[in-house]
Amino acid sequence: MLSGNSIGRRLVLTSFGESHGKCIGAVLDGCPAGLELEEKDIQKMLDLRKPGQSLVSTQRKEGDVVEILTGTFRGYTTGAPITMVIWNKDQKSIAYEKLRTEMRPGHSDYPAYMKYKKFNDHRGGGRFSGRLTATHVMGGAIARKLLKDTIGVETNSYTTQIGKIKMKKAAAKKEFRSIYTNEVRCPEKNTAQKMKSVILDARKKGDSLGGIIESITTNLPVGLGEPIFGSLESDISKAIFSIPAVKGIEFGSGFAGSEKFGSENNDAYVMKGGKVSTKSNNSGGILGGISNGMPITIRIAFKPASSISQIQQSVDIKKKKSIKLQVGGRHDPCVVPRAPPVVDSLVALTIADHALLSGTIKPTL
Amino acid sequence: MLSGNSIGRRLVLTSFGESHGKCIGAVLDGCPAGLELEEKDIQKMLDLRKPGQSLVSTQRKEGDVVEILTGTFRGYTTGAPITMVIWNKDQKSIAYEKLRTEMRPGHSDYPAYMKYKKFNDHRGGGRFSGRLTATHVMGGAIARKLLKDTIGVETNSYTTQIGKIKMKKAAAKKEFRSIYTNEVRCPEKNTAQKMKSVILDARKKGDSLGGIIESITTNLPVGLGEPIFGSLESDISKAIFSIPAVKGIEFGSGFAGSEKFGSENNDAYVMKGGKVSTKSNNSGGILGGISNGMPITIRIAFKPASSISQIQQSVDIKKKKSIKLQVGGRHDPCVVPRAPPVVDSLVALTIADHALLSGTIKPTL
Amino acid sequence: MLSGNSIGRRLVLTSFGESHGKCIGAVLDGCPAGLELEEKDIQKMLDLRKPGQSLVSTQRKEGDVVEILTGTFRGYTTGAPITMVIWNKDQKSIAYEKLRTEMRPGHSDYPAYMKYKKFNDHRGGGRFSGRLTATHVMGGAIARKLLKDTIGVETNSYTTQIGKIKMKKAAAKKEFRSIYTNEVRCPEKNTAQKMKSVILDARKKGDSLGGIIESITTNLPVGLGEPIFGSLESDISKAIFSIPAVKGIEFGSGFAGSEKFGSENNDAYVMKGGKVSTKSNNSGGILGGISNGMPITIRIAFKPASSISQIQQSVDIKKKKSIKLQVGGRHDPCVVPRAPPVVDSLVALTIADHALLSGTIKPTL
Amino acid sequence: MLSGNSIGRRLVLTSFGESHGKCIGAVLDGCPAGLELEEKDIQKMLDLRKPGQSLVSTQRKEGDVVEILTGTFRGYTTGAPITMVIWNKDQKSIAYEKLRTEMRPGHSDYPAYMKYKKFNDHRGGGRFSGRLTATHVMGGAIARKLLKDTIGVETNSYTTQIGKIKMKKAAAKKEFRSIYTNEVRCPEKNTAQKMKSVILDARKKGDSLGGIIESITTNLPVGLGEPIFGSLESDISKAIFSIPAVKGIEFGSGFAGSEKFGSENNDAYVMKGGKVSTKSNNSGGILGGISNGMPITIRIAFKPASSISQIQQSVDIKKKKSIKLQVGGRHDPCVVPRAPPVVDSLVALTIADHALLSGTIKPTL
Repeated sequence: MLSGNSIGRRLVLTSFGESHGKCIGAVLDGCPAGLELEEKDIQKMLDLRKPGQSLVSTQRKEGDVVEILTGTFRGYTTGAPITMVIWNKDQKSIAYEKLRTEMRPGHSDYPAYMKYKKFNDHRGGGRFSGRLTATHVMGGAIARKLLKDTIGVETNSYTTQIGKIKMKKAAAKKEFRSIYTNEVRCPEKNTAQKMKSVILDARKKGDSLGGIIESITTNLPVGLGEPIFGSLESDISKAIFSIPAVKGIEFGSGFAGSEKFGSENNDAYVMKGGKVSTKSNNSGGILGGISNGMPITIRIAFKPASSISQIQQSVDIKKKKSIKLQVGGRHDPCVVPRAPPVVDSLVALTIADHALLSGTIKPTL
Repeated sequence: MLSGNSIGRRLVLTSFGESHGKCIGAVLDGCPAGLELEEKDIQKMLDLRKPGQSLVSTQRKEGDVVEILTGTFRGYTTGAPITMVIWNKDQKSIAYEKLRTEMRPGHSDYPAYMKYKKFNDHRGGGRFSGRLTATHVMGGAIARKLLKDTIGVETNSYTTQIGKIKMKKAAAKKEFRSIYTNEVRCPEKNTAQKMKSVILDARKKGDSLGGIIESITTNLPVGLGEPIFGSLESDISKAIFSIPAVKGIEFGSGFAGSEKFGSENNDAYVMKGGKVSTKSNNSGGILGGISNGMPITIRIAFKPASSISQIQQSVDIKKKKSIKLQVGGRHDPCVVPRAPPVVDSLVALTIADHALLSGTIKPTL
Repeated sequence: MLSGNSIGRRLVLTSFGESHGKCIGAVLDGCPAGLELEEKDIQKMLDLRKPGQSLVSTQRKEGDVVEILTGTFRGYTTGAPITMVIWNKDQKSIAYEKLRTEMRPGHSDYPAYMKYKKFNDHRGGGRFSGRLTATHVMGGAIARKLLKDTIGVETNSYTTQIGKIKMKKAAAKKEFRSIYTNEVRCPEKNTAQKMKSVILDARKKGDSLGGIIESITTNLPVGLGEPIFGSLESDISKAIFSIPAVKGIEFGSGFAGSEKFGSENNDAYVMKGGKVSTKSNNSGGILGGISNGMPITIRIAFKPASSISQIQQSVDIKKKKSIKLQVGGRHDPCVVPRAPPVVDSLVALTIADHALLSGTIKPTL
Repeated sequence: MLSGNSIGRRLVLTSFGESHGKCIGAVLDGCPAGLELEEKDIQKMLDLRKPGQSLVSTQRKEGDVVEILTGTFRGYTTGAPITMVIWNKDQKSIAYEKLRTEMRPGHSDYPAYMKYKKFNDHRGGGRFSGRLTATHVMGGAIARKLLKDTIGVETNSYTTQIGKIKMKKAAAKKEFRSIYTNEVRCPEKNTAQKMKSVILDARKKGDSLGGIIESITTNLPVGLGEPIFGSLESDISKAIFSIPAVKGIEFGSGFAGSEKFGSENNDAYVMKGGKVSTKSNNSGGILGGISNGMPITIRIAFKPASSISQIQQSVDIKKKKSIKLQVGGRHDPCVVPRAPPVVDSLVALTIADHALLSGTIKPTL
């Protein structure tokens, strides 16, 4: 499939809409018939990424109320494309007018202007807005439910680092339930406190912070994924890099693993009650691109949000001259706390895609 | 496209063959008609990843002589699929017989066994062998030539870290020519020496080492890539993770960037002779998924090779019991020095794909 | 792309919605940025297939008012997905309740029931309804405008046969303007009269009629289409068979051509003012799957509509017994007169797809 | 998938090679692991389309001996891409030299010249040669075996018309075994005789004839195919039109059906031993694009071969002037007798693709 607005092979998500247009939405095609599905199943997850919930995120009020337009009948999916929309509200496009020619550093303004010329809908970032990740969640909420209801796979992610503040170690399964007990989505209570305060400092300075999200997927069957170009790492990373602020990803021991010896990094096999398992999980649950039954562990690097209110050096693309630019509007001092549902969505979509490809999940339930 | 054996949308590479079968090969489809192409153009690049060149890599002798079967006529591409093969030689499959049921830690043996049952061609790793990356280079050599001959884009990569030995800083353009002056493919002469010695130590211990490759693509036009799922990061990462040992990737400031403030990480725009450019390049040349004209900078983490000759704890999948396993055969103590041509190939394939998608390169030259 | 709800490679149309759901709609992805587009451009063409316009078609009133949700900005396309919907009205779903288990002959009821089980939205035929062809027209109206505004290609089609009533010969270019001057969409005035009367007869008898549509595309550049599986015939036929009632298609001399000798069927080349052209056009403008610059001529066979009000022999799939079935509701005695805009749409979508693939039309105008 | 050299979604056939190049071949990707497969399984079917078998076809000797290069191991498929080649022999390319600029009527010469310029490999028709249909048979032989060995689906086709000589009626199942008892592949003995003689007459005159192939697929499960763009008619027709000489296709009652009333054309349902079936089969086994369990019946129109030795009017594209052209070389006076294995192959590939998509056939047997 040619377009950059769709992802997936057997379960295909097509994202549409603009940040300040009539709506944003998605078509999820290939979802099996017979999955119980109501709007609240999707809304729940959308609410977790919704902005305006606390000072750590933007103060824009985005209702983000999802409406299912097609693909369900009497509370179940039909096998037809599932179309979902969020009708946009509360846009202040005026603030963006001068940005047509004044390029915001770190934003897509400049390449978008060169690629689409004057035709690009720049308002609120248009297609490039982080707001579009809500369309990932629309599809991801369904994929996540499909995985859980059929084969019991669960995807969880959380904030493990903000700026220089880091969690002491990866979260244990039992800690997943406390991810959403705080605004920064970090299961370590004290670390969460510190994270919040560095974010609020950045906000005061009109600056922004980045961070790292950790994603753990449990209860996977052995054998999902394909050698060469269909590896789980290939497909998951392609999906994750659709999040505007993501600039890095690693699986299992990742970058740290490249400093180790093979004898340290190889995960020894053990038999546990007739079931094969590994002592360590440096592979992150993926060998040769295929799931080995251990949890899939991913770490994702987010850059600090490009939108800051400090004065920055830039250019006016039309006047072809240097300028001092100060960007108004309401920004996220840190987008990381809003990212876990998006990451969960993209991981779930990819794994559900492979589960359908391999016949692990049937096209009609 | 559904299969895991193909990659690309407009320029599609399909990989085929098995490590110990008759041959390995590739079909490159979508290459424009009119590109001057001979076997030596591909052979040159294949020779740079060929094993058996020094003690830092495996002592297996793989001739890796490419033959073009289709798609060229009188020294030019015709627009038809370009089929290339390397006829296999010097396989010692016997060594692999017992591995049918004894699972090598860190290898794909176990998930492959569960996915394909007894039908998997396990000899020499079959489809999962690093040897298959030669098929990436077959296509990549053509993509790289296409980019250079038409729009002047150049891709270079080198070893920046082996185990704990690191280069002091990213290579400058002028250093690219010295990448292949040493066996570890590191442009810093002294660092290269240290890298070589730690690899030879690992070899003596029957152990292996990982490392990091840095890739730099220069002279890109502004505007390649697409928002959302067709971002350059998405497509490049999908391609790069097809390399068996890769476990992490980052663009620009990557993971380090997530510790910075937005005011530090944003790249200020400047006008240079009527041309827009940025002071720094923390974005790695990609904003909103689209090239901004600055060099694309990528760092790629390789795990230490799974094949080590030390005794490891494992299981016999058929007897369902724990075993002590010692893997024979000839291994790479470190695959990183052989990776730069593979990385260049996958980056070039992805960028050529987008150049064709966007009409920057025409279907008939 | 895997799903049956999308078509196209570079210009992708995804159809969504159900006949009696909230809406039907389409996403057109890959349309170049910079095409002038308003809702009325699409509405015009939708109105030509709208039912309830005369006694020759169903008396159902379907407003079929299109709304563009995304992808345009200030009257131009942006390069982003164009989402369009028609909000459904005037459905009488009750009439369909018993049809859940009583299978209408000639309809998709039975295979759909076996494929999707109870989950299929059967109301009004759900996804199988001819009503869904309105989503083809949404995309087709844009493709047709794109072709006309950029490279001057024009697609026209008309009714050449209803039941046994046939036009004397293919329409000349100047006759195209009279296609929509009558309800059956036949440019021959007298033939149109006869066609209308046989349709009204069939209606009286509670029966239905089929027919044949002829499509002529003019002003094509030479060289669109690809050898083997990307031939214009392959892609056009795939598109056309998405119309529920279509059971046959032929290009140029088609079935009649298979009775001829090569010496009769070959189109001799002639030079006309330095331009190559052919004396006859038995090839229908396509040689080796590629356009040769002559008009593309297609004939499409439509079966008589399956919905008739006569009593028919059938089965109750649940009770597993034979039944006598009489289908109520308002039907088209003949769908052919509503088909020309749908045929034009699918031909235009396919040709625009190839024009984009070949770089004949640029991604930003 | 963008390219015109591949077909299929889950089971993908990629065709490569040129008529007078080193070889022609195919990669079949997505074939399940565990199918018993040897070269002779493919060779058998290739031999049925091989030329030089009688006077009704060309006297060119093409050995057409297939070699499997990859994808099988110890007599079974592995799930990896299956690569097959036929090494070319007996080409007389010299005969084609002048054809670089003298355009053969009815051939692809002219559009190919305009599309690929001088880079097109015109020798023997290059990619446009009917010889490439051997690559369809390579994949088709495997698909056909897969269908038969797993779900018992059988595909048969035969010559039902040559020029004006027609079979009296469609062949009954028991007649399938006599298809290959004569050179024209027509199960009616006497009709076959007449067909042969008109072909030999045409040969004497240096002319050619067309005809019609009928294809019947039996024992299909209910539910293969998808609504809208994934209909069996859509996918089968796309595949069939990849055969160079095909100009028309119809399913079930097809064009004849468009003259009927709905009350005649609808197939009444009946219960046979608890199994649903239809009295007639005007639908050709496909309703709403989905198989209904009845035989899939297709009629395919072949134009008379373009290559004739009579003098024809044409143009020299370089000199831009009219010429009298006489084409030398050895031609098929009628390609129809060689087409049944090709038609069977393309139908089998399409149905196997849908059987895999729907999970009816598993990825590992």
